[in-house]
Amino acid sequence: MSSTIPVDLGDRSYSIEVGADLLARLGPLCKKLGLYSSCLVVSDGHVDTHYGAACARSLETAGFTPARVVVPPGEPSKSQTQLFYIYDQALEAGLDRNAFIVALGGGGVGDLAGYAAASYLRGIPYIQVPTTLLAMVDSSVGGKTSINLPQGKNLIGAFHQPVGVLADTTTLKTLPEREYKAGLAEVIKYGIIQNAALFETLEKELDDLLDMDLETLEPVITRCCEIKAAIVHQDEREAGLRSILNFGHTVGHAIEQVSGYRQYLHGEAIAIGMNYAAHLSVKERGLTQKECDRICRLIQASGLPMKAPDHEWPAMRNAMQADKKNVAHTPRFVLAKGIGSVAHGCEVPEQLLEDVWYDCCQ
Amino acid sequence: MSSTIPVDLGDRSYSIEVGADLLARLGPLCKKLGLYSSCLVVSDGHVDTHYGAACARSLETAGFTPARVVVPPGEPSKSQTQLFYIYDQALEAGLDRNAFIVALGGGGVGDLAGYAAASYLRGIPYIQVPTTLLAMVDSSVGGKTSINLPQGKNLIGAFHQPVGVLADTTTLKTLPEREYKAGLAEVIKYGIIQNAALFETLEKELDDLLDMDLETLEPVITRCCEIKAAIVHQDEREAGLRSILNFGHTVGHAIEQVSGYRQYLHGEAIAIGMNYAAHLSVKERGLTQKECDRICRLIQASGLPMKAPDHEWPAMRNAMQADKKNVAHTPRFVLAKGIGSVAHGCEVPEQLLEDVWYDCCQ
Repeated sequence: MSSTIPVDLGDRSYSIEVGADLLARLGPLCKKLGLYSSCLVVSDGHVDTHYGAACARSLETAGFTPARVVVPPGEPSKSQTQLFYIYDQALEAGLDRNAFIVALGGGGVGDLAGYAAASYLRGIPYIQVPTTLLAMVDSSVGGKTSINLPQGKNLIGAFHQPVGVLADTTTLKTLPEREYKAGLAEVIKYGIIQNAALFETLEKELDDLLDMDLETLEPVITRCCEIKAAIVHQDEREAGLRSILNFGHTVGHAIEQVSGYRQYLHGEAIAIGMNYAAHLSVKERGLTQKECDRICRLIQASGLPMKAPDHEWPAMRNAMQADKKNVAHTPRFVLAKGIGSVAHGCEVPEQLLEDVWYDCCQ
Repeated sequence: MSSTIPVDLGDRSYSIEVGADLLARLGPLCKKLGLYSSCLVVSDGHVDTHYGAACARSLETAGFTPARVVVPPGEPSKSQTQLFYIYDQALEAGLDRNAFIVALGGGGVGDLAGYAAASYLRGIPYIQVPTTLLAMVDSSVGGKTSINLPQGKNLIGAFHQPVGVLADTTTLKTLPEREYKAGLAEVIKYGIIQNAALFETLEKELDDLLDMDLETLEPVITRCCEIKAAIVHQDEREAGLRSILNFGHTVGHAIEQVSGYRQYLHGEAIAIGMNYAAHLSVKERGLTQKECDRICRLIQASGLPMKAPDHEWPAMRNAMQADKKNVAHTPRFVLAKGIGSVAHGCEVPEQLLEDVWYDCCQ
């Protein structure tokens, strides 16, 4: 059982494959895509241990010459240091303009390896092989690549679409439970921003999803990818609409930054950010209290955090200054008008920003 | 007197303005281009001293908020260190997605500042304001941006078109003579690769050009920009044709690298590389000895070097390994069939590569 979701972007179009036991298809897929020459498989220590060899074997069998490069796990690896380490390894492995990169891992590895591919020799192709729920439903699709700076998250990067995405759901079996739940935060997000039916499905089937029942999970992942593909198709470079994908992210990114990218996983920070954004939406965009409660209940029932009690507002507000969505230093929010419908680019009174933080997230 | 050369690249189209005393038009041009918010003017110490204030004044008068950032002069500034310094300064100056960068200076500043613009917040607009002959006729046009790695030149970068190019020929008056002559190397290159008439003009009017007579010079710069714009229009991302702009560059880049980017200016290294490529062309592509002599005579009469006697072939050959034009570790050359006509992607026997180096360039 597997599904194919087309991402329609003109001459940058590609397909997402979602299904069980797909890893062995990596080599044949690369061949089918017309890739050749050498390649670099980038992953973190955990993922490389589980899937690095299988990945390399599939590539070798298909006639490629893969080299493996391993970075430390987690968001701190989206750094200048690791980026230039990958460049060195790419040169060492002899990657020329006809070579390609395979991003094997979670969102961090995908962003980092994708950005290395975007900038190495002014851009070479890459394949996303997401191994976390978050990467499967969100970061591996849409071509956003980046690294962080000490001043903020994703401040350096490029729009560089992968030539293919291969989401092997079997790899989720080795994902720590905490990371799996963090991925559910982005799944919930899709329900809120665009699909009330998906939101209801999540409410109904949450137990099966928490048990990682692949038959329940695969259609959910597929649905999320379809939603993202449709949004990216309409607004590849985030001129407007695409920013709705950032629901919960303005505060989520700030939480990650004030906690040094170590205390919360990205999805956990987004869960807190969605709690915050939902309450802001009640005040500013007419989200009903009942809908807000449903959102909060689903986040909590997924085992995700709602609050960041260690962090005071001034530090949070300061961290928001470097957000890319800002216009003239003023943070902009994605707010919900109802479950399944949001507005973007919303400016919010400063006092309210602080009040909602202390009322709901502290 | 000024000319406008359109660069036709669909929604990435822009114009090059060439003429005297254009610097004061920078602010109005940016306004006309629909830019707004804050901006960062990147230049080197020399250029900033001469033109930084005038540039900032023109921008301020037009309602912009410019900050100035200064990097050390020369190719070594196209480095990881200076790139991340510019990111820091951009954040410090509060540049958001609506901000832009002005690259004020020679090819090095243009490549570095252009690449900063390509990658900061996943890409913001930039204007090229070239102040060297080389930058005016070559590097400011076409959207190639990059930094160097210790392993080789321009290994990291992006295709990111400027939104405008403003070439104020008056700024050449403060350019050191050696740098001016280095720029002539790229002018000669345009004659060789595509325009025998331009080559003849250069032969005839070389004295006036060496005297920097603006009335002779401006049509020559304009012609070079037209040639480059036409090539980039046909092959923006260097799938094939665009690589003819690299005539003399395979060996030129290697010379720059083995000499640590300090002994030769880029144009000087290209002059030696063109001498090399011309002799290779006689052996491999039927360039007549007479044409080869004309090429060498013009290079020499321009006061450009023909040889790099300090550098032995093994080091040169090794430096060529990281060239982006390589296919499967084999260097590829642009070779002349005649003055005004070249072939690209040429493979050459190893022994001949070495022989020509020792016969002509050592």
